[in-house]
Amino acid sequence: MRGRVSTMLKNWIIPIQPEKEELEERLKEARERLASLQMKLKEHKLPVLILMEGWGAAGKGSLIGKIIKNIDPRFFKVVTMEQSDQEERRYPFLHRYFVEIPEAGKFALYDSGWMNEVCMKRARKEIDSQTYQQRVHCIKRFERQLTDNGYLVMKFFCHITQEEQKKRMEALLAHKDTRWRVSESDRWQNQHYEKCEKIFGKYMEDTNISTAPWYIINAEKKKWAQLQVLETLCNGIDIAMQNSSHAVPILQNVFPLVTMPKLSEISLEEKTISEEEYQAQRKELQAQLRDLHNRLYRKQVPVIICYEGWDAAGKGGNIKRITEALDPRGFEVQPIASPEPHEKARHYLWRFWNRLPKTGHITIFDRTWYGRVMVERLEGFCTENDWQRAYNEMNEFEKDLYDWGAVIIKFWVQIDKDTQLERFTARQNTPEKQWKITDEDWRNREKWDDYEKAVDEMLQKTSTTYAPWYILESVDKKYARIKALKIVIRRLEEALN
Amino acid sequence: MRGRVSTMLKNWIIPIQPEKEELEERLKEARERLASLQMKLKEHKLPVLILMEGWGAAGKGSLIGKIIKNIDPRFFKVVTMEQSDQEERRYPFLHRYFVEIPEAGKFALYDSGWMNEVCMKRARKEIDSQTYQQRVHCIKRFERQLTDNGYLVMKFFCHITQEEQKKRMEALLAHKDTRWRVSESDRWQNQHYEKCEKIFGKYMEDTNISTAPWYIINAEKKKWAQLQVLETLCNGIDIAMQNSSHAVPILQNVFPLVTMPKLSEISLEEKTISEEEYQAQRKELQAQLRDLHNRLYRKQVPVIICYEGWDAAGKGGNIKRITEALDPRGFEVQPIASPEPHEKARHYLWRFWNRLPKTGHITIFDRTWYGRVMVERLEGFCTENDWQRAYNEMNEFEKDLYDWGAVIIKFWVQIDKDTQLERFTARQNTPEKQWKITDEDWRNREKWDDYEKAVDEMLQKTSTTYAPWYILESVDKKYARIKALKIVIRRLEEALN
Repeated sequence: MRGRVSTMLKNWIIPIQPEKEELEERLKEARERLASLQMKLKEHKLPVLILMEGWGAAGKGSLIGKIIKNIDPRFFKVVTMEQSDQEERRYPFLHRYFVEIPEAGKFALYDSGWMNEVCMKRARKEIDSQTYQQRVHCIKRFERQLTDNGYLVMKFFCHITQEEQKKRMEALLAHKDTRWRVSESDRWQNQHYEKCEKIFGKYMEDTNISTAPWYIINAEKKKWAQLQVLETLCNGIDIAMQNSSHAVPILQNVFPLVTMPKLSEISLEEKTISEEEYQAQRKELQAQLRDLHNRLYRKQVPVIICYEGWDAAGKGGNIKRITEALDPRGFEVQPIASPEPHEKARHYLWRFWNRLPKTGHITIFDRTWYGRVMVERLEGFCTENDWQRAYNEMNEFEKDLYDWGAVIIKFWVQIDKDTQLERFTARQNTPEKQWKITDEDWRNREKWDDYEKAVDEMLQKTSTTYAPWYILESVDKKYARIKALKIVIRRLEEALN
Repeated sequence: MRGRVSTMLKNWIIPIQPEKEELEERLKEARERLASLQMKLKEHKLPVLILMEGWGAAGKGSLIGKIIKNIDPRFFKVVTMEQSDQEERRYPFLHRYFVEIPEAGKFALYDSGWMNEVCMKRARKEIDSQTYQQRVHCIKRFERQLTDNGYLVMKFFCHITQEEQKKRMEALLAHKDTRWRVSESDRWQNQHYEKCEKIFGKYMEDTNISTAPWYIINAEKKKWAQLQVLETLCNGIDIAMQNSSHAVPILQNVFPLVTMPKLSEISLEEKTISEEEYQAQRKELQAQLRDLHNRLYRKQVPVIICYEGWDAAGKGGNIKRITEALDPRGFEVQPIASPEPHEKARHYLWRFWNRLPKTGHITIFDRTWYGRVMVERLEGFCTENDWQRAYNEMNEFEKDLYDWGAVIIKFWVQIDKDTQLERFTARQNTPEKQWKITDEDWRNREKWDDYEKAVDEMLQKTSTTYAPWYILESVDKKYARIKALKIVIRRLEEALN
């Protein structure tokens, strides 16, 4: 019989299955097409993320096995996710998915992922409707950020009926060797099929965005399922490769902002402190911070401290006065230089997702993701559309961290142009400090005005109430250090009370 | 005071208002930018649809007035919508909006539109939650179709507080000359502000798609509102102009399909009827149809009959046997040739939205929108991405018509290649019929196999349960005419019972 129509998950309709002969022919064609596309993918530097979701026992794993058969092993990885373990729970919800995103020119195939996690938790009432909504928002932002940044995101849902699922599970359970493949969750799903179907359907409606739509696969017949996935995938790749440098709308900010001054409005005068006063206050404040760090650890609060500022503004020394007070087992300083090739090949926030603290830990970033709207903007390392979009993307990133429970403190270390010149000259003239000054520093200094404009815009657009910027006036470095210590202490106390 | 933060419509945040001096400077800049962009728009053939929604008395009209001041009058039109009147109600919900979409290189500014219509009806409980959902689906499809087809869609919501709205309305009501500007609906809105705010917020969340996002404008201060709109608009145009030939994902079909044979599987043999039998049946059937047409009119059912088929298959004569039975005041035949320049400059479905029947009327299309996936596909008049996307777009279009209550009947008039040759030759050799045969017909005939493949794909992908294709075997034209009459009669009877 040529084709049969079946209604799935309310409104979703499967394509009509071709006859056996046509099926075989198209399968052969699709496999060859995918095999040849992988090389073009490489040239186009297109990263492809394939999310394979669906019912338990729908054959997601074997489907992934069939796809990768046509791809060179150097060009793909399969990402499997078990129930999030203890360690994973110490990171934000999307962390374990984000760190696995593919690099440019390669495939990552997720053997179920964030959909399954959210939907099954919702079905089993482990999260309430509000948390569900929050996660869906978070997922939509995640997927949009990927596609906005040039990723191809292909989302498949493998569908089988309740009867078919039961039949397959029974077949697996009947043999000692395959019994382990039926999880408790699969069994629960089959017993609560209708409930799950409703939740899956709603989720797919909620997340069916035009840049990363859902494709429902009829997985009752294996070869037919394979063909649907292969053809849809090849079409998706073809389309994505046509859009190598595509600009996307700049979204309006939806996060609450605090007012920030322009750099030119910040007075640097009288922001000084005597050596005596400094030593007394420093000791006192560091003792307080030491105590807070212990309490943080017990309360499992993650803390992220960001440093940005002019060259020679005194970031290093400032950071040191913070870390001196911290238990070395509970913090890390992450110096951020230009991205490595494997970092450049991924979403620009990827390397920061990879450097997050665990709950209860502190990470200090010496320079941050804000390089996107400063050096990358001014040196033309990304397009205008990229950096304009980045303000919102970074607010979203920090919102995810905040929702996870993190304290986020962002410092701009401020000096004036003359002070910088003095310090540059001093470095140049002091043999043991010469390594600290490079030609690049002098070149950047020439662009002071452009940088100042970019910094002003950054401060205006990314100082959210949940992750505000603080200015550290650092002509007197000691003053800046005391101010930083006080701010960190205040924010941690707020988080702990 | 530099900037103030206010939370609006739950999560939406306004940008921070600049100081007066900066405001004036940026306004001047934005106006000049828009003025210069209009010429580039023309070159890029970018159509721009601006939807200006918001609270009553928020100043949408005057805001539109300020925008168009910077645009040459030949390049824009303002679309105002009063409450849908009796005449408008005889068309599908989106009809009056679709027919006003801008042409390539021009602006259309809607002074409130589909959002206001749907939300206010929902707020006043004139539509239930299910109808609301259906309309939202319909709107999302509409906006996606526009952006997929190269339109820039900019959606603004002008926000003011309940107090401000009240204050403005009172000021208008205080003067005889301005009193008329406060509608009953505005007053109702102010009395039910919170309820409306909730509905507006939900609607914007429901329709905030990444390719056509919402921008919330703080409309409390006029100049500031103006600046927000102008800057956002200019940015949107800049981005859209970078993406002149952008391919988009092909969505999976979500509509129920009926199985169709391939053309090669259709037997044309023994599909004949004697002259005598033909005359008897025709009279009988035409009488039935005449009667049904009257009943249709009384029940206000709109009917759309589509004819596609090979050249010289006998479409014209077939149509004639239908129209002979109809009251001339209640039907129209729409012959579809290549699009005129003003039609080509718009979404390819626009000219069909413009030719729909009113409720109770019948429109017969002699060739249709399916040209997109036949001649336009084969002659390269659109990109591959365009025609591949079109199957779904046409299913969506017909779904809108079906939801409105239309009966949709699609005929493919089928002959074989030899029969076509015979008829071409006969036309060529008969002086009074020579006008019916052109060089183009012969050229198309050479591409018979390509066309057959395209038709097969079209029949497979667009024969939905609510708008199915019917094959009219027309080697014996009389047979085809009787079959068409019978199908039309059956479908109309079903609709009337």
